[in-house]
Amino acid sequence: MRHDPLPPRAPLDPAFLARLVDRFGVQAHLTDAMREQHGRSEAHFTPMLPDAVVFARSTEDVVDLVRLCGQADVPIVPFGAGTSIEGNTLAVRGGVSVDLSEMNAILEVNAEDFDCTVQAGCRREELNLHLRDQGLFFPIDPGANATIGGMASTRASGTNAVRYGTMREAVLSLTVVTPDAQVIRTARRARKSAAGYDLTRLYVGSEGTLGIITEVTLRLHPIPETISSAVCGFDTLQGAVDTVVQSIQLGVPLARVEILDEAQIRAVNRWSKLDLAEVVTLFFEFHGSPAGVAEQIENVGALAAANGGSDFSWSNRPEERARLWKARHEAYYAAVNMRPGAVGWTTDVCVPISRLPECILETRADLEQSSVPATILGHVGDGNFHVIFSVDPAAPHEMEEVERINRRLVERALLMDGTCTGEHGIGLGKQDWLVAELGDAVDVMRTLKRALDPKDLFNPGKIFAL
Amino acid sequence: MRHDPLPPRAPLDPAFLARLVDRFGVQAHLTDAMREQHGRSEAHFTPMLPDAVVFARSTEDVVDLVRLCGQADVPIVPFGAGTSIEGNTLAVRGGVSVDLSEMNAILEVNAEDFDCTVQAGCRREELNLHLRDQGLFFPIDPGANATIGGMASTRASGTNAVRYGTMREAVLSLTVVTPDAQVIRTARRARKSAAGYDLTRLYVGSEGTLGIITEVTLRLHPIPETISSAVCGFDTLQGAVDTVVQSIQLGVPLARVEILDEAQIRAVNRWSKLDLAEVVTLFFEFHGSPAGVAEQIENVGALAAANGGSDFSWSNRPEERARLWKARHEAYYAAVNMRPGAVGWTTDVCVPISRLPECILETRADLEQSSVPATILGHVGDGNFHVIFSVDPAAPHEMEEVERINRRLVERALLMDGTCTGEHGIGLGKQDWLVAELGDAVDVMRTLKRALDPKDLFNPGKIFAL
Repeated sequence: MRHDPLPPRAPLDPAFLARLVDRFGVQAHLTDAMREQHGRSEAHFTPMLPDAVVFARSTEDVVDLVRLCGQADVPIVPFGAGTSIEGNTLAVRGGVSVDLSEMNAILEVNAEDFDCTVQAGCRREELNLHLRDQGLFFPIDPGANATIGGMASTRASGTNAVRYGTMREAVLSLTVVTPDAQVIRTARRARKSAAGYDLTRLYVGSEGTLGIITEVTLRLHPIPETISSAVCGFDTLQGAVDTVVQSIQLGVPLARVEILDEAQIRAVNRWSKLDLAEVVTLFFEFHGSPAGVAEQIENVGALAAANGGSDFSWSNRPEERARLWKARHEAYYAAVNMRPGAVGWTTDVCVPISRLPECILETRADLEQSSVPATILGHVGDGNFHVIFSVDPAAPHEMEEVERINRRLVERALLMDGTCTGEHGIGLGKQDWLVAELGDAVDVMRTLKRALDPKDLFNPGKIFAL
Repeated sequence: MRHDPLPPRAPLDPAFLARLVDRFGVQAHLTDAMREQHGRSEAHFTPMLPDAVVFARSTEDVVDLVRLCGQADVPIVPFGAGTSIEGNTLAVRGGVSVDLSEMNAILEVNAEDFDCTVQAGCRREELNLHLRDQGLFFPIDPGANATIGGMASTRASGTNAVRYGTMREAVLSLTVVTPDAQVIRTARRARKSAAGYDLTRLYVGSEGTLGIITEVTLRLHPIPETISSAVCGFDTLQGAVDTVVQSIQLGVPLARVEILDEAQIRAVNRWSKLDLAEVVTLFFEFHGSPAGVAEQIENVGALAAANGGSDFSWSNRPEERARLWKARHEAYYAAVNMRPGAVGWTTDVCVPISRLPECILETRADLEQSSVPATILGHVGDGNFHVIFSVDPAAPHEMEEVERINRRLVERALLMDGTCTGEHGIGLGKQDWLVAELGDAVDVMRTLKRALDPKDLFNPGKIFAL
């Protein structure tokens, strides 16, 4: 992992800063407070401050900023809600952090076409509130109330991906400002197209290194007639995972299925005032018609019972469902807050689902040897799980221990033909692992980066050092 | 549209051909018959022959061929089943056609993970035959028995896309030989990943211009417990499309829904010896549990009745379903063969579904003014439809008329925020429309092409002229 100290940087040319203030007025900020707010992350990375922060209000603002930065060779780092956890928005080489949170308009909703277009700074919870009256929803749900642009940039997914896919599937089209200050739209609003290279998918997950996303057209889904949640405890981890695999094999269209280990359930019980049995537990959500959901519950319930599961505790009352998933969403905070003063450190491997029990069990054996408190939770239908460590920031040996366990975990996942990052992106934290995972393919990525951003000004130092 | 005569080419250096034969022996072919077979397409394009054909048997063969061609600046054009219809495999600048059809092994099937890895030359029907005993299937179905590599290269889709997506969603990972003869694997076997740029999606749909796909890892699906088909005639086109939109809004997971106009039904009746009422017709397929399928049929049947549809004629007997979908798959041949000696010419627009009735109705008004026989059929759940013209190849004015109607159709689709090509790719036939559709974004595509294939040797002249 790279935590090398950064090389010292010269301060930005005052003439550049003057031009910035001249063009952007009150939208430009040079204060320490604002720079600090944009130069730290929710995770364990050392803060790296931009020299300036500009709040963009339009694609034209971004174009002008890209021009100004390009002329002065100043780095530019896009910033949304700041909820990413691989240091994706840190200003490794300083420069300007362009904050898109004020570009939060919902530009259009085409209910009959099941799509909408929003500005990049729109947040997913606000979008869903807006869509609700039209019977539609946007399913991608990483937990945090992230911006849609940020979610596109990191190829986010989360609890609904097993049924509805990730941002890769959810994004129909993007408006992007390129490093040479062109504004492109990557696709039309048709649901599918074979028109040339898939630029939409190239920018989804590119973490701001190839362009700045300013507008996003998203696929939407009809709100299901019936939504039902269930909780089920298991004797063994293997039993829990087998239940999920067999459900998928049976064709059950699980909308969500999350695994939480004993330690995570303990944390959730305490933080969210629940009283779940403290065993390996699956949280389910079922979407469909009343009869369809009843059939899903019956089938999954039978499989769970055959695999050592408890009786389903289930509910289709909205407030109970909301309480359950709120607890799931707060699981990260619940885990970290088990230890006062701790900092969160999250892993993110994703493996073929047949290897998931083995991968989790071997990891848990490592955790049992460790002095750093940790919980496990995951998107079991995708083969993706997280270990959340609660690290004492004043104890360097703890950080070393976590890195050692994470190294073993990623190596284990790669041996299983998995990935080092299911949904958090590479950012600063996974750069060495990207090379271990994809080898020479990373050379192709570098070639693309050099071709589109030859001066390396767009979120430099992320995904890979050039 | 570009049908400019090609500039004269010098014959290939005999020393290069000697090296080719030396390395590849009986796998290398220089005969006119073999060159002609690889230099024409199923559609209306003028044949453009390669100088040589090499049948690759391994990724290493492709690597060596790419090296040889690179050293001698010879173009290289990948060839699968030859079923593409935008001239995608024609040797615009001659060179070597690399035929991957002998690389047709199914390398592994991971039933528990719902994935498999095949060589690029494996065909979809053979793959499904192989998978059947394991209760799995590969859903993407463009009609023709195309190779998986070819389907990935053109981002194919077809009748199942409304439920199962396109090759964009179906491909998990690719093995690709790059223009500098590196072998890369674009992703691991995890179902999702946020590890750097999405090279998988960059190569899916790149039509052999950025690299040659030699292996493909695919997502599979469990064969549904119940499969049922239905046919329903409608008074009006609007009624048929409204039935589909309302079904999707209701959350019905339609597995297939195809629209065929009166003329297409007439052709299908004659070619496949059916006796369907000659009106606008929807072909449906429903996948699910017995109760789930029954519920889908009930819901869609009620919507159809409310929108001027006839009673459902439906069946879950495999041989009747097979007969129906065989007729749908042969619809292209059925249409073209209504006119002896005719050549097929197919359009491929895709629009937001709310605009589909208007788009089809305006197009049909154009067709009614035309002397060239034509039918309409489409993947109505995606907003994608085809006009199949049966053109007299000896009558140049017919080709002009078809091009005029197609121009009006594509312009109409673009005004509706649609695409010129839903699933056939750009190839030679849609290059001007690509620019009309995506504007400056095509510059970004050219930049990517120049960066990865600076000598423009990989399927040159396709998607765009550099």
